[in-house]
Amino acid sequence: MSPQSLEQFLHHEIPLSRAMQVMAVDVSAESVQLSAPLAPNLNHHATVFGGSSCALAMLAAWSLLHVRLRVSFPSASIVIQGQSMRYSRPILGTFAARALLAEPAEWPAFVRLLKRRGRARITVASTLDYAGSAAGHFSGDFVAFVGL
Amino acid sequence: MSPQSLEQFLHHEIPLSRAMQVMAVDVSAESVQLSAPLAPNLNHHATVFGGSSCALAMLAAWSLLHVRLRVSFPSASIVIQGQSMRYSRPILGTFAARALLAEPAEWPAFVRLLKRRGRARITVASTLDYAGSAAGHFSGDFVAFVGL
Repeated sequence: MSPQSLEQFLHHEIPLSRAMQVMAVDVSAESVQLSAPLAPNLNHHATVFGGSSCALAMLAAWSLLHVRLRVSFPSASIVIQGQSMRYSRPILGTFAARALLAEPAEWPAFVRLLKRRGRARITVASTLDYAGSAAGHFSGDFVAFVGL
Repeated sequence: MSPQSLEQFLHHEIPLSRAMQVMAVDVSAESVQLSAPLAPNLNHHATVFGGSSCALAMLAAWSLLHVRLRVSFPSASIVIQGQSMRYSRPILGTFAARALLAEPAEWPAFVRLLKRRGRARITVASTLDYAGSAAGHFSGDFVAFVGL
């Protein structure tokens, strides 16, 4: 999936990603990187609103699962069950979120379970980056479903 | 602080709250309730995007501290340090977030520390409501700072 296709998909299906001006920077089966500019994501301190950075981290994490599942499970639904986030420093400009599987070794068991039971759970980690270093960490638990 | 003033403040200072069409429903020192309609907060399953519901819960929690601190500490800055959220069911329409102090008994110590050291930390809990019952739970750790 190209960054352009992912970006179009997000903007079309999730209007908030359009309001946030989310851009897809890098898309592969290993990681997805999204970015967003400061202006639509400002808070009253003229830094990035924590709700925006959390949403970007969540979109990157969801997108990684979408990219990895779309060939073998084109009808899979991927739903967030829970997440946690730590913010380590204020973000004063364009920021990015890079998502990776929290435990890549768990992927084969996740896929086996999804095939066998039509439902499986996995954790995705996203790191927020600003000006070349980490500004926060997100961990999201997702459940994938397929029609049986 | 009236719901109208809080709503105007949020829309003016945090553009994403305007994009989400956040409304302030109820504002007191005990709790703040915000709501938002489905359309601007949709995801690709035609339910509410988890990033939107998290942002609404965070805005309600931040607003509760803003409302409680604005008289005694008008120059206080309130910053989120971390948060976690569980999503218990899909939201298919207008939704709300109601914020309360996680431990109201800790408030006096929080205020004493803020006066003495210019910095103190507190946890706020928000419950997501949809169609009359809970749809998720948010817990946010906030730090307040005042000029010394």
